[in-house]
Amino acid sequence: MPDTSRIKHTKLTSRIMPAREAAALIRDGMVIGASGFTRSGDSKAVLPALAQIAESERIRITLMTGASLGQGTDGALATAGAIAMRLPFQSDPVMRTIINQGGLPYIDENLSETAAHIRNGFLPPIDIAIIEAASIDADGSIVPTTSVGNSAIFVQQAKSVIVEINQAVPVEIRGIHDVFLPEDPTGRAILPITEVWQRIGQDVIACDPEKIAAIVFTNQKDSPAETTSDNAAADAIASHLLHFFEQEIAVGRLTRSLRPIQAGIGKIADAVLSGLAQGDFEHLTMYSEVLQDSTFRLIDSGKMDFASGSSVTLSDDCYQRVFADFEHYRHKILLRPQDITNAAEVIQRLGIIAINTALECDIYGNVNSSHISGSHIVNGIGGSADFAQNSYLSIFVTESVAKAGRISRIVPMVTHVDHSEHDVDVIVTEQGLADLRGMSPRQKAQAILRHCVHPDYHDVLSDYFERACRRGGHTPHALEEAFRLHTNLAETGSMKGRVLMDAAE
Amino acid sequence: MPDTSRIKHTKLTSRIMPAREAAALIRDGMVIGASGFTRSGDSKAVLPALAQIAESERIRITLMTGASLGQGTDGALATAGAIAMRLPFQSDPVMRTIINQGGLPYIDENLSETAAHIRNGFLPPIDIAIIEAASIDADGSIVPTTSVGNSAIFVQQAKSVIVEINQAVPVEIRGIHDVFLPEDPTGRAILPITEVWQRIGQDVIACDPEKIAAIVFTNQKDSPAETTSDNAAADAIASHLLHFFEQEIAVGRLTRSLRPIQAGIGKIADAVLSGLAQGDFEHLTMYSEVLQDSTFRLIDSGKMDFASGSSVTLSDDCYQRVFADFEHYRHKILLRPQDITNAAEVIQRLGIIAINTALECDIYGNVNSSHISGSHIVNGIGGSADFAQNSYLSIFVTESVAKAGRISRIVPMVTHVDHSEHDVDVIVTEQGLADLRGMSPRQKAQAILRHCVHPDYHDVLSDYFERACRRGGHTPHALEEAFRLHTNLAETGSMKGRVLMDAAE
Ligand SMILES: CC(C)(COP(=O)(O)OP(=O)(O)OC[C@H]1O[C@@H](n2cnc3c(N)ncnc32)[C@H](O)[C@@H]1OP(=O)(O)O)[C@@H](O)C(=O)NCCC(=O)NCCS
Ligand SMILES: CC(C)(COP(=O)(O)OP(=O)(O)OC[C@H]1O[C@@H](n2cnc3c(N)ncnc32)[C@H](O)[C@@H]1OP(=O)(O)O)[C@@H](O)C(=O)NCCC(=O)NCCS
Repeated sequence: MPDTSRIKHTKLTSRIMPAREAAALIRDGMVIGASGFTRSGDSKAVLPALAQIAESERIRITLMTGASLGQGTDGALATAGAIAMRLPFQSDPVMRTIINQGGLPYIDENLSETAAHIRNGFLPPIDIAIIEAASIDADGSIVPTTSVGNSAIFVQQAKSVIVEINQAVPVEIRGIHDVFLPEDPTGRAILPITEVWQRIGQDVIACDPEKIAAIVFTNQKDSPAETTSDNAAADAIASHLLHFFEQEIAVGRLTRSLRPIQAGIGKIADAVLSGLAQGDFEHLTMYSEVLQDSTFRLIDSGKMDFASGSSVTLSDDCYQRVFADFEHYRHKILLRPQDITNAAEVIQRLGIIAINTALECDIYGNVNSSHISGSHIVNGIGGSADFAQNSYLSIFVTESVAKAGRISRIVPMVTHVDHSEHDVDVIVTEQGLADLRGMSPRQKAQAILRHCVHPDYHDVLSDYFERACRRGGHTPHALEEAFRLHTNLAETGSMKGRVLMDAAE
Repeated sequence: MPDTSRIKHTKLTSRIMPAREAAALIRDGMVIGASGFTRSGDSKAVLPALAQIAESERIRITLMTGASLGQGTDGALATAGAIAMRLPFQSDPVMRTIINQGGLPYIDENLSETAAHIRNGFLPPIDIAIIEAASIDADGSIVPTTSVGNSAIFVQQAKSVIVEINQAVPVEIRGIHDVFLPEDPTGRAILPITEVWQRIGQDVIACDPEKIAAIVFTNQKDSPAETTSDNAAADAIASHLLHFFEQEIAVGRLTRSLRPIQAGIGKIADAVLSGLAQGDFEHLTMYSEVLQDSTFRLIDSGKMDFASGSSVTLSDDCYQRVFADFEHYRHKILLRPQDITNAAEVIQRLGIIAINTALECDIYGNVNSSHISGSHIVNGIGGSADFAQNSYLSIFVTESVAKAGRISRIVPMVTHVDHSEHDVDVIVTEQGLADLRGMSPRQKAQAILRHCVHPDYHDVLSDYFERACRRGGHTPHALEEAFRLHTNLAETGSMKGRVLMDAAE
């Protein structure tokens, strides 16, 4: 039963309708801005209904979101051929396959940038916004649920708005959001955040009630985060990082509160953050994108005071725990639009320590976080570059190998660059930690070879580096064999297939 | 004769000494922070004297500057073996050769970042700052000359300071500088610039007079900028860009004042900026790094109201003209520290149009601005990424070919990534302009192939793209032949050496 008390603007109750009816408002060719960030606060009913409609009717939309959706929605829409263009992030295995087949144009964007691109008219104007809400205020304002993402800009710019009121989310969630819409880049407002817990906006998304074309009731939890199973590599990485932080504290560059932390998605980053609970820290804070289980583990351990993000994406267990005792957590977290969580200005001012995951790194410290063998996308760049470029310290974590050792994640040259060596300060694998600050490219290579590479690949990588150095260059390469490990992999199923030595001059 | 009236702190006149004596204060192993940005406002006497001393004595220093030095100083120091480490930018042909031979570790840094790296203790502490000045105030404050660069942070952090008073620079230069030192990144100050002409600091570099260990008098102009000879490619690029701006004005995204412009170094960027004088613009402004001849041409044409930068780097002719009529120009320009001119925060807030030069671009819109064939550095990344990443519109210009057509500057995959596709909105060659906004990688490739590629290379690049697409991927590549054009060049002296078709599947 729809709990109409969640709609304080009583006239709007007349717009309550079934999901399928609301989905029918979406026409072929429309541009849709939908809530949802890393599986949280996404449309549970209207987009899935649209996918169903699209199975029998021709309907293809441009779909913008905050970041990835849960519920398999992206996969269902892609399978139904309902997507003409997708941005700025996805992580759905089915959609990913279709993108890589060339069946779906995808704009993989820095998550900070979509709002500005919309505002600047670099993207097509939004027809309909679909926003998951906990409730609607008397003036039409929308109380978001477990994410903010791009919802505020979507509501502001859309011609009409479909609200999904999710009764599975307690109305008490109201108050954890801080919604600020910066103005146009010409004379755009200063973002006056100088502390992670500072509020600069409203706790709701302002919305003209006339724009609300439909209200759909749902009662369904977010897709749970994938839980991290025990991972020896992650533990080793966490311990290298703890040791590094201890050294930084010892020389006086950091205190026991470190600096505000951002931790990216991926198995390792979450595990590493949990690892901080083992360290001798106090009054930690986060200024991040996604608040994961690890955030709440740190809060529970008493070591973290506050966490700012754009979504909470939790395992089932953690979700239960947090919402069962929400009053305990509500003053310790804040959810903001992703152009605020990821704003260069704020990240620089706060002096963030950014911890993100690499798919592969090269010996000179360039990082690939998105494309397997340079061609096939996994998820996308997400917010990783927003943080890597502007942080006080940009750390990338990765296991030194993948696929049972058949792939070295440290390579001569990355096949795709998401983060150039200028934006990578520290690389950590289970083998060790390379602190690249204050180093030239050749010095970086020596540090990465010494500390990060898996022993199985040490000789082949050192040999490449030495021979390339003999040819000269600031960043020595031998282009004809820079991707030899990758072509080995393609030909033989393992990077070990043939050794680079074959190509020795 | 030293004009001691330029030293208002009269006691300091006792520190006047010959350059060689001041240079002798510099000891082996020291860290030196020297003024100088794109050949302007650099040490004319002390660093050259040091190079001479180093020819006979073992003395190796870490040398930090704003950006490149003039006078062949970097080359002389490198040849004398006087440099243990150089950062953050250089453009000297002799030094470049030694760097590429592996004879000199060079940290090629984003120009915005050096000050923060110093402040954060990521770089070794500075022993001596060498600063070119027009005069010294009664309280010891230093009036800079034709650049600000990193001079303020160097003076603040150095144990002692050597001032070079350059009598070739008129004392009337005082007042065009705006020196602001932000605080530590934890709780670092907001940079409150919301208009290009806004002052936020002092017109001098504060300096404890006790720190001034030596004063050296010089009387020598900056090395002149290389003048741009007539260049048909640059004219064509300028005309494509004018047409593009007209279209943006027509659809209402820009006005006839455009937005504040940044124009990078390189022959093409300067020529393109001059080309704006042909357009129907008014009240243009610049928020850039280097103010070049083109800036003053635009001011003279009445189309530009104001230009903010970190240095003025002019040809001899233009230098004469500007300093002969300095009162006319003084209220139209402002020189700031490079962490302010290149601050992400300010660049984003002002909504800059950034125009930088590419050495090569790939079909997906990634740009290499620094490394020939991925190995050999030309200059460095400079401020190009600071602007490309944070601008409203990031434009890269380049001729479609180099070396009389033997090199295509559009390639399947760049051999070094300074700017990822996320930070490149528009690519312009003399062939045409590709507007990449709102496009997926495959769409970008189609636009670049259609508009930017030289006809001689069109087939080979289209063929690569089509065959790569058949293999699949979000950003389709065929790794074993991604650098075939470059290996052709290495083997045969031309990218046309062998065609990619040979490798057709
Ligand atoms: C980089 C990223 C994909 C890592 O996520 P993850 O879940 O830890 O991924 P894995 O390391 O397990 O790798 C994913 C898959 O690629 C494979 N893989 C990993 N590295 C590889 C490599 N170098 N070459 C080929 N395959 C590789 C893995 O084996 C795995 O395959 P499987 O699922 O078939 O076992 C993820 O962090 C990401 O999308 N990052 C970009 C966005 C981002 O960083 N956002 C941060 C701000 S929130
Ligand atoms: C990219 C950059 C080097 C271009 O400068 P430029 O003076 O226009 O350089 P050119 O295009 O003439 O190229 C320089 C040399 O490299 C050669 N070259 C150019 N592209 C090449 C390519 N793709 N492969 C091989 N050689 C190439 C040219 O032929 C020329 O050689 P030559 O001097 O022997 O004739 C310069 O803009 C730069 O250093 N940029 C990085 C810093 C920056 O952008 N700062 C901006 C903020 S101020």
